[in-house]
Amino acid sequence: MKALQYRIVGAAPEVVTVPDPDPGPGQILLKVTAAGVCHSDIAVMSRPAEALSFPLPLTLGHEGVGTVAALGAGVTGFAEGDQVAVYGPWGCGACAKCAEGKENYCLRAGALGIRPPGLGAPGAMAEYLLVDDARHLVPLDGLDPVAAVPLTDAGLTPYHAVKRALPRLVPGSTAVVIGAGGLGHVAVQLLRALSPARVVALDISEDKLRLAREVGAHETVRSDERAAAVVRELTGGLGAEAVFDFVGAPPTVAVAGAVAAVEGEISVVGLGGGALPVGFGRLPHEVSVSSPYWGSRGELAEVLALARSGALSVHTETFTLDEAPLAYERLHAGRVDGRAVVLPNG
Amino acid sequence: MKALQYRIVGAAPEVVTVPDPDPGPGQILLKVTAAGVCHSDIAVMSRPAEALSFPLPLTLGHEGVGTVAALGAGVTGFAEGDQVAVYGPWGCGACAKCAEGKENYCLRAGALGIRPPGLGAPGAMAEYLLVDDARHLVPLDGLDPVAAVPLTDAGLTPYHAVKRALPRLVPGSTAVVIGAGGLGHVAVQLLRALSPARVVALDISEDKLRLAREVGAHETVRSDERAAAVVRELTGGLGAEAVFDFVGAPPTVAVAGAVAAVEGEISVVGLGGGALPVGFGRLPHEVSVSSPYWGSRGELAEVLALARSGALSVHTETFTLDEAPLAYERLHAGRVDGRAVVLPNG
Amino acid sequence: MKALQYRIVGAAPEVVTVPDPDPGPGQILLKVTAAGVCHSDIAVMSRPAEALSFPLPLTLGHEGVGTVAALGAGVTGFAEGDQVAVYGPWGCGACAKCAEGKENYCLRAGALGIRPPGLGAPGAMAEYLLVDDARHLVPLDGLDPVAAVPLTDAGLTPYHAVKRALPRLVPGSTAVVIGAGGLGHVAVQLLRALSPARVVALDISEDKLRLAREVGAHETVRSDERAAAVVRELTGGLGAEAVFDFVGAPPTVAVAGAVAAVEGEISVVGLGGGALPVGFGRLPHEVSVSSPYWGSRGELAEVLALARSGALSVHTETFTLDEAPLAYERLHAGRVDGRAVVLPNG
Amino acid sequence: MKALQYRIVGAAPEVVTVPDPDPGPGQILLKVTAAGVCHSDIAVMSRPAEALSFPLPLTLGHEGVGTVAALGAGVTGFAEGDQVAVYGPWGCGACAKCAEGKENYCLRAGALGIRPPGLGAPGAMAEYLLVDDARHLVPLDGLDPVAAVPLTDAGLTPYHAVKRALPRLVPGSTAVVIGAGGLGHVAVQLLRALSPARVVALDISEDKLRLAREVGAHETVRSDERAAAVVRELTGGLGAEAVFDFVGAPPTVAVAGAVAAVEGEISVVGLGGGALPVGFGRLPHEVSVSSPYWGSRGELAEVLALARSGALSVHTETFTLDEAPLAYERLHAGRVDGRAVVLPNG
Repeated sequence: MKALQYRIVGAAPEVVTVPDPDPGPGQILLKVTAAGVCHSDIAVMSRPAEALSFPLPLTLGHEGVGTVAALGAGVTGFAEGDQVAVYGPWGCGACAKCAEGKENYCLRAGALGIRPPGLGAPGAMAEYLLVDDARHLVPLDGLDPVAAVPLTDAGLTPYHAVKRALPRLVPGSTAVVIGAGGLGHVAVQLLRALSPARVVALDISEDKLRLAREVGAHETVRSDERAAAVVRELTGGLGAEAVFDFVGAPPTVAVAGAVAAVEGEISVVGLGGGALPVGFGRLPHEVSVSSPYWGSRGELAEVLALARSGALSVHTETFTLDEAPLAYERLHAGRVDGRAVVLPNG
Repeated sequence: MKALQYRIVGAAPEVVTVPDPDPGPGQILLKVTAAGVCHSDIAVMSRPAEALSFPLPLTLGHEGVGTVAALGAGVTGFAEGDQVAVYGPWGCGACAKCAEGKENYCLRAGALGIRPPGLGAPGAMAEYLLVDDARHLVPLDGLDPVAAVPLTDAGLTPYHAVKRALPRLVPGSTAVVIGAGGLGHVAVQLLRALSPARVVALDISEDKLRLAREVGAHETVRSDERAAAVVRELTGGLGAEAVFDFVGAPPTVAVAGAVAAVEGEISVVGLGGGALPVGFGRLPHEVSVSSPYWGSRGELAEVLALARSGALSVHTETFTLDEAPLAYERLHAGRVDGRAVVLPNG
Repeated sequence: MKALQYRIVGAAPEVVTVPDPDPGPGQILLKVTAAGVCHSDIAVMSRPAEALSFPLPLTLGHEGVGTVAALGAGVTGFAEGDQVAVYGPWGCGACAKCAEGKENYCLRAGALGIRPPGLGAPGAMAEYLLVDDARHLVPLDGLDPVAAVPLTDAGLTPYHAVKRALPRLVPGSTAVVIGAGGLGHVAVQLLRALSPARVVALDISEDKLRLAREVGAHETVRSDERAAAVVRELTGGLGAEAVFDFVGAPPTVAVAGAVAAVEGEISVVGLGGGALPVGFGRLPHEVSVSSPYWGSRGELAEVLALARSGALSVHTETFTLDEAPLAYERLHAGRVDGRAVVLPNG
Repeated sequence: MKALQYRIVGAAPEVVTVPDPDPGPGQILLKVTAAGVCHSDIAVMSRPAEALSFPLPLTLGHEGVGTVAALGAGVTGFAEGDQVAVYGPWGCGACAKCAEGKENYCLRAGALGIRPPGLGAPGAMAEYLLVDDARHLVPLDGLDPVAAVPLTDAGLTPYHAVKRALPRLVPGSTAVVIGAGGLGHVAVQLLRALSPARVVALDISEDKLRLAREVGAHETVRSDERAAAVVRELTGGLGAEAVFDFVGAPPTVAVAGAVAAVEGEISVVGLGGGALPVGFGRLPHEVSVSSPYWGSRGELAEVLALARSGALSVHTETFTLDEAPLAYERLHAGRVDGRAVVLPNG
């Protein structure tokens, strides 16, 4: 079959022919309908050889949706032809975290060499994808595959971050979203659907601020050196009960810290290399700062349920598998509107 | 192999010879070290044919501990010789409840015909037990098999009920345990290990009240018509923040309702046929009443971890597989001290 | 001043002249702008003398909004002319519940003889209202007094019930509101504003079902003997994660029990005299049933904040103080649209 | 009356005579039985004039216990002669935080100029203390005043931090306490009383590690450059689910970060000037870092209830008011065992 692989450190990914995979006991073979192109792939491909946590070549694609093509021995609960989304952060299935469905925080994945598809295991940018266990599949139940595929990461990651913050987001509260791109514009929609909070979006791009308003942000603020003061003023001096930083660069984490309210929560989601120092007197009392990663199995099902209700709309641009290298080029150049999706059998 | 089976409605279980099981893909074969004898088996065996939810014959035993004897195709994470406890309330592994490890509340088990071992599927009262998936095993990690086996139900069930109540059990609060038998005397220990609450145990038997004191109850009260007034007095009139009724009979649920504090929580765990009516003005404001069932995968691991720390001690009495019918007889007659455990290969 | 008083057991309330109140140390005198007429007043006035928990005459009105007219010695934080809403369920301010703002569950109010205005203390159906402490006032901050006054009970009570249930109301879940009247039609709006749940409203009146749809119910179901089956079908057999019964009569609590999902929560809010029996096997596993009462200080501030955002709309019909007896007559006869509000100085 | 005052920036506090206070409406006058000497006083007295947030002279003492000597107009719920502890972090009583009893996080205290006794308002190091409101008093109910007074800060502060972490501290988990001094040795006791976690204490002093073991630490580790590796090894490589840093210096926050487990919680309580940077990849996934401050009204009542049960033991050394300057000297020199307590009327 054809697959998009990252083969040489620093080089662009390329479409190659690889053997068709075959499902062993407990495994499921999917014919891939759609695979998402993600900034984190570019981050991985920018790393030097010694910082790569897996061997090359690697078939890319950690967001995947497909049709069940074959079931390995012993698999129950699915049938050929079922349309499914893939839960990407595979774990061991048995440790304390996995026992609660938080495979994104599996305590043994590292030791056992378990890696997500497209980030170590062969990914979804191929005609077929081998999924290790039926528990990593969620039925689409009528969702459009192209609209659904970004939800498996660009939807699930902000969903997890937002869900943690909901107890703080009572009526009268404020949520700040820093970075209104792929994940951020989903976060705005999630906040509107799940909470009564006022949503304030920050970005350096006017286009993205316009998008944030279109998908429901109550206020948008240009992310410059005055941003924190503007947010403070919008909140009567109190700041925001929840701050989501989808950029995570040094200047954005500083803004995150500067706009947080007493007992607020800051989620540093973006990989931008910034870090916010926490210690007595540095931030308002008891502001919690953490860096969450992806989401749980149950949360993926919830994101898809929310999409079925019509509350989420992710702008997508599609590419064939042969055009996939171009999709990465364009994403890298900032020329993708919303989320790029590859159709490996399209 | 030999197995203890319930074969004829209303008759006593008997030891018979059945074919040795063989693990299919994803399954694990255990050589059973210990199997627990439980009141609920007797309850099931007391039902008329039309109330049985599974066909006969049935190999009994929903509490099981064993040694991995063989792995089906595709099973990873365990090796032959591993000592494991079995998580009994099997579910589908994929629904919203199972995705969080709450297989005891699986939304599809009924529709899919999935039943716990010993309560529909062949149970642990046999030389070998077939476990459907590796996720249903928890390593013993040094626990004594005989001491550990009751924890899979008589430990897990009160653990789940107690854990739910912990946010209410702040310093100065009171927890009431009604019925200080198999589950109740574990509940007393759990409350002492997990909370600062004052623990009050109620029972009609002086022996069981003595046991309750030995395992840590601060106060014991004879469960008669004055019991509720005594508990009210012990709590300065406020009542108990958490009440666990391990009997669940009409008089005990009435006591449960009569001793609960404002915003308290009542767990009706016992199968005694009682029911507590909830409506405006019937109980102190916002007392929550529910009937929990067994526990989650993560909770079983936690109970076993607690036992490893030495905080739990379950009195057990052992029987060979051939003596197993006798164990049920004695349990039925109220002549078992603590928990009866069958050693099928002992 | 003029006041509407309940003076003789079983008789209609009447407008009388009483002495003007004077604020002692720590007290605040309000010139009442609006006072809400509530079903529970009628319930109280239907009780025989021996079931009354306070002496007559009683100035009615437990929902009140007013203007600060005078401050007792030592009062800070408010000034004459401030527009405020009154938190009604007064408590001692010091016990464990009051220390968290849950004065509705004060542990000492009974012993200390503390009663809510209009339900023991002189209420808001008068030209002036004496409030015992500044902590029982919330600034209106621009809310319309007539629109705001019902929020202090008809808003706060369902808000408290709904807020408790929010962790269960994830995407894909269902909330059932039984009784789409004064509190119920606010509950529908609260559920839409605070959760992504599908909202199903039940009532016996087509008018109220129409109102429920207008304020956001996704589905409405006639509350007859088929209602439970219809809700089960709407939820794919799983039932509702949260059920709010604002009627609380025997048939409605039965429906509540019949539509609840595993681990669901049932709030019996209505005073209709029904009670739902809870015990093993009576309801789906671990359904929690409780009867909440009013709400906390913090929750009242949150309801008002939500109203400021425009998410709540309570239909009101206004009456002068002299017309107040008529308002009660019409409410009793079921001829009030939404909520009746008395304007004592209007 | 006599009072210990901090009068000149940089100078030692001195005993002076000041006018006797008189309770206004709503206020309570206490005859002080005991007042605690705290490191944070020394921190405040080390600041330059421009960093002081209140004018001098200041009567010290933010931990206080006393006997009600006089009630201002309108005060209810207390009588002369009552023994009470003072809740120190006074707030406005009305904002969203205060409405839940979290006056330590009052949103308006700064704007209104409200300051804790001993940290801006006249404190407890005097014969009499004026308390602004009855809600700031908790009855001792039999507790020894000297043993109780440190609980109002050195008990309440770690209690609040520990209580937040309890949901993470399931059986099998580990809690790390860095700094086994005044607050730390209380934290060890709180963790043992409230959770089943294994408690590991770190300190640079062997004496304090011995104290930690005496009050219940399961393991003690010398806080040097190998400490993090030792804790990792003690936890099978997983780290600690909760870390409490009562030093808060640059090296200790680094250790805190290095020993935290996935989804763990780090509380930086100490004022040592350190700060832990949080960003993607800096710490294990979703470790939450925050700096809590003191505790809530409800929590103080809970700490005192816990002390009544006998679970807390604070080592104290007593001084007369005239000796109070000496107590500060000795604390500064590290020559106080446990907690220094001043007896202003002793």
